Amino acid sequence: MNIALLPGDGIGPEVIDQAVKVVKAIGQKFGHKITFKEAVVGAAAIDATGLPYPDSTHEIAAASDAVLFGAIGDPKYDNDPKAKVRPEQGLLLMRQKLGLFANVRPTFTFPSLVHKSPLKLDRVEGVDFVFFRELTGGIYFGEPRGRNEQGTKAFDTNVYSKEEITRLARMGFEAAQKRRKLLTCVDKANVMATSRLWRETVQELAPEYPDVKVEYEFVDAVAMRLIQWPKAYDVLITENLFGDILTDEASVISGSMGLMPSASLGTSIKLFEPIHGSYPQAAGKDIANPLATVLSAAMMFDYAFDLKEEAQLISDVVNQSLAEGYVTEDIADGGPSYKTSQVGDWLA
Amino acid sequence: MNIALLPGDGIGPEVIDQAVKVVKAIGQKFGHKITFKEAVVGAAAIDATGLPYPDSTHEIAAASDAVLFGAIGDPKYDNDPKAKVRPEQGLLLMRQKLGLFANVRPTFTFPSLVHKSPLKLDRVEGVDFVFFRELTGGIYFGEPRGRNEQGTKAFDTNVYSKEEITRLARMGFEAAQKRRKLLTCVDKANVMATSRLWRETVQELAPEYPDVKVEYEFVDAVAMRLIQWPKAYDVLITENLFGDILTDEASVISGSMGLMPSASLGTSIKLFEPIHGSYPQAAGKDIANPLATVLSAAMMFDYAFDLKEEAQLISDVVNQSLAEGYVTEDIADGGPSYKTSQVGDWLA
Ligand SMILES: CC(C)[C@H](C(=O)O)[C@@H](O)C(=O)O
Ligand SMILES: CC(C)[C@H](C(=O)O)[C@@H](O)C(=O)O
Repeated sequence: MNIALLPGDGIGPEVIDQAVKVVKAIGQKFGHKITFKEAVVGAAAIDATGLPYPDSTHEIAAASDAVLFGAIGDPKYDNDPKAKVRPEQGLLLMRQKLGLFANVRPTFTFPSLVHKSPLKLDRVEGVDFVFFRELTGGIYFGEPRGRNEQGTKAFDTNVYSKEEITRLARMGFEAAQKRRKLLTCVDKANVMATSRLWRETVQELAPEYPDVKVEYEFVDAVAMRLIQWPKAYDVLITENLFGDILTDEASVISGSMGLMPSASLGTSIKLFEPIHGSYPQAAGKDIANPLATVLSAAMMFDYAFDLKEEAQLISDVVNQSLAEGYVTEDIADGGPSYKTSQVGDWLA
Repeated sequence: MNIALLPGDGIGPEVIDQAVKVVKAIGQKFGHKITFKEAVVGAAAIDATGLPYPDSTHEIAAASDAVLFGAIGDPKYDNDPKAKVRPEQGLLLMRQKLGLFANVRPTFTFPSLVHKSPLKLDRVEGVDFVFFRELTGGIYFGEPRGRNEQGTKAFDTNVYSKEEITRLARMGFEAAQKRRKLLTCVDKANVMATSRLWRETVQELAPEYPDVKVEYEFVDAVAMRLIQWPKAYDVLITENLFGDILTDEASVISGSMGLMPSASLGTSIKLFEPIHGSYPQAAGKDIANPLATVLSAAMMFDYAFDLKEEAQLISDVVNQSLAEGYVTEDIADGGPSYKTSQVGDWLA
């Protein structure tokens, strides 16, 4: 197993370090030969090479069997709307060049953390849904985009083809078949032409999955119902921009945002990353919570290598660390807490 | 005062009826001469005229001093992506033809209802923020939009001019000056060209409002923080599509979605409406909660006629109905409940 490590910015390197410890331990226990190759991305890559996703990084990622990715983003770029190179471009370029068209974002709860949810217990206990967000199309990449000559007008293009929608939707249907058999297609078909193509395409596919119940909901309604009745959802499919907003909204529901992993899947390469950001205030302090990245490594064993036992063992040991309170400060609830690196050692 | 009544679909006519009773009572008490003209819009207008916003309706609305609007939408149009005429087109056309470029959506709590929030009490008690959503631009109206010839590709255009952003942003700055002096500009400037123009334009305006603190946040971050720390916000400004999603998300926070009013402001005409939808399942049953529409009438006295005392009296009487439990079933908490028309009579 050749794993590319792309730690990125902020706390990225620290949390990736812990995931590597755990992956190595799994390799030893199960007798897998695992090699790692590291490369820069994001602000770290701009600082080193001038580019947020240099070719040298792409070569390492594209040649790997799976990518473990940390986080991207540096506040020094956020409030400069005229900056020519931005770390996020690295993320977008990486998604595009690796063909990572589906972002899989599960939301579930940890019994020991559910009390941290901003939602009332009865709304959130037992929540278990998963978003399939389209990741390489839509307004993120559509052309034309830019300004008029005088700079007084700006425009972006949202564009989707039936093929792009179909391949994402099929992943959603298949996931629903293995889960509670409910698929929600999230769109804005009452306003947007792209959304009408989404809805139409999903309607055409539905008869191929007769065991899956399909519901169509507008993005604004989902933004409400995710908070009101999150348990109503099973699998949700949606376009890139809606997915960006809704998966982040969903991430606060469980009370354990710092623990949520994600996968980005494509035709060949698969990438795994925590959903949290680069958290620059915490960078270098050995205080960041590594569990989301470690759980992303669990997803890697499951989705990239189809090694369920290895994945399960990592999940189990994360649950054990929560049960025994061997955790970082952010989830210690005033009890004893441990450093990022200590938690990584304990898990490994 | 010439008030145009556009009841629309579903429960629209019933809730508008109650607002009319209250407005008439105010007119009587304060000696205002108030006349009403009614017109069709939405599915009701399609059924009557074939068009969702016929010219006859526009003439009545455009000639009025203020518009009271109910709700639009009929499920028979929702799952037919190929329908040529949709009720929502009436809403969009109305906004565009009346020049209603700013949708003002307050979120606040009613002490007697805050326990209904899906959020924990400490997160939501005392929440008080207001969205200014741009309403006549962006991806809702941008051209080109549609399909390629074979129908296998769809596209929408998001477009904003500096002028559109400026007039909306100024409203937000001015509102912030009268409130807690915090303005949050919500965009996706790390991805979208339109968002970068939003951020740039707001940055240029900020020095004219030195007493207002301006924060810039990405739409995905706001989707999270609205749920985590809704009290952190005061005034938020944003584009049409982000506003659609975030204001609906915000509407569930207070526990009193059925009570939230809104205003849509333009260069001349002003329109007032409840934020809830047409709720077709309840139509004709005399059970819909009329309070959001009545509070929209309060906003009308305030924003359209600058009559603060009249507005305050309506708010007070709504609070009294809540305190005394003279309410519809949806908020009666198992106690005695009253019909839509009874609540209207009581308030009047
Ligand atoms: C950083 C940004 C470009 C990115 C996105 O919008 O896709 C992020 O929010 C995400 O969801 O991974
Ligand atoms: C019905 C729909 C077109 C409309 C919108 O998206 O603007 C509605 O959701 C709203 O927010 O008023």
